Amino acid sequence: MRVAFQGEPGAYSEQAVFNYFGKVETKPCESFDVVFDSVVSDECGQGLIPIENSLAGSIHQNYDLLLRHDLHIVGEYLLRVQHCLITLPGVKKEEIKKVISHPQALGQCAAYLRNLGIKAEAVYDTAGSVKMLKANGEGTTAAIASRRAAELYEMQILEEGIEDNPENYTRFLAISKKAVEPSVEAKTSIVFTLKNQPGSLFKAMSVFALRDIDLTKIESRPLQGKPWEYLFYIDFIGAEHDETVRKALDHLGEYALMLRVLGSYPRYKG
Amino acid sequence: MRVAFQGEPGAYSEQAVFNYFGKVETKPCESFDVVFDSVVSDECGQGLIPIENSLAGSIHQNYDLLLRHDLHIVGEYLLRVQHCLITLPGVKKEEIKKVISHPQALGQCAAYLRNLGIKAEAVYDTAGSVKMLKANGEGTTAAIASRRAAELYEMQILEEGIEDNPENYTRFLAISKKAVEPSVEAKTSIVFTLKNQPGSLFKAMSVFALRDIDLTKIESRPLQGKPWEYLFYIDFIGAEHDETVRKALDHLGEYALMLRVLGSYPRYKG
Repeated sequence: MRVAFQGEPGAYSEQAVFNYFGKVETKPCESFDVVFDSVVSDECGQGLIPIENSLAGSIHQNYDLLLRHDLHIVGEYLLRVQHCLITLPGVKKEEIKKVISHPQALGQCAAYLRNLGIKAEAVYDTAGSVKMLKANGEGTTAAIASRRAAELYEMQILEEGIEDNPENYTRFLAISKKAVEPSVEAKTSIVFTLKNQPGSLFKAMSVFALRDIDLTKIESRPLQGKPWEYLFYIDFIGAEHDETVRKALDHLGEYALMLRVLGSYPRYKG
Repeated sequence: MRVAFQGEPGAYSEQAVFNYFGKVETKPCESFDVVFDSVVSDECGQGLIPIENSLAGSIHQNYDLLLRHDLHIVGEYLLRVQHCLITLPGVKKEEIKKVISHPQALGQCAAYLRNLGIKAEAVYDTAGSVKMLKANGEGTTAAIASRRAAELYEMQILEEGIEDNPENYTRFLAISKKAVEPSVEAKTSIVFTLKNQPGSLFKAMSVFALRDIDLTKIESRPLQGKPWEYLFYIDFIGAEHDETVRKALDHLGEYALMLRVLGSYPRYKG
């Protein structure tokens, strides 16, 4: 099977693909749109997209793409983002004068770099910074990227886990044309809109609370241009085909202006 | 008064400062941490921080900083992010061969750039791309940044509003050492944690629903490392000192493990 991801070879998303799927062929895509298109066109059997990061929040763009495409969420994976300090083989830490990476990665290692007294320079992406370093052969420059990027370009990892905040996790969703019926503990992701009136979300949530269904995520998102409408994202424990869940969704359908089940999938267990 | 913001002069955050505060002195800060520190140390009377974007989601890092500091939210502002195509004076659109900007801005104008058939090159930030262009004097290169950045560096705006999705808004919060008591329609932002058991959020929300208090935002955030604890962010209409709100917060305090009012402030009206 081939799996699409957004980014260059060696990107954190590609690392997540290998961790989650094992040995598969990957297709690097320049944008999330292309990841979805690759699955729709059957060029790839599945795609793996980031949906939220513990520091940066939900990636609304991917929720929009899930709504615009007729694909199903079939799995989830949680990647601990561990940044590596990467150099040419044989370079010592005290020789480094400059470090290059994507601005977000540099920001997440700011305290570490301040302590080392190293100058930071922003480039297009994390894996790309390792590729650049390999090409220009600079012995006094380091890159910040994933372990996978270092291995891909046969470079040296001087230190792993140099991010200031170790609580840096990205949640990924696997998407496919064909839905799955999980036999193990399942999670279901839904999106819906409600009329904006006091208590409407409370009513909507009662369909889960009255049936002891456990929510694992809830998020509201104002719809710009429609100042009185909101989109809600909810994840809960249970599969769409469970009787209790089916009843809760029927019940929610009575209140919701729009309701879409994005998929039921095996819950990720660390 | 002096107002702190994150970014370079000409950044979208600085544009938001001028739109919201009018003519004030600004302090560009290299990180959100420095914005908070500048207000804590009285170097700046207020700071303006982005808290959520309509495409990219909530900026959790700034919620973390609000929790770590004893500051108050005293205002909100909604900026429509409008990207400008910026060149040296006199350059015509058909002469442009390359465009430089922050990767996020390039991504948000991807379809526009594809139509023009222009190559995109990523640099550190949006305002910085205009500064670079001014310095190197390249007539075949354009930058993508805010109107403010073009004005600051006395450059030409060839086109405004070139983003693919016009529903691109960033919500900013003004932070200060001194809380305000809004006399007009107010919004209040709170953060709390709950024991993770089915229905606990439903109970917590009942304190608002039973009093017809209108929620404008709700978001859950799993606490990494504490797999059974969640942080919740809620915004609602009303001020902390309103009697109904006070009662609702007292009531919520009975369930919540932690509850913090981040501030009551005048609601932004377009």
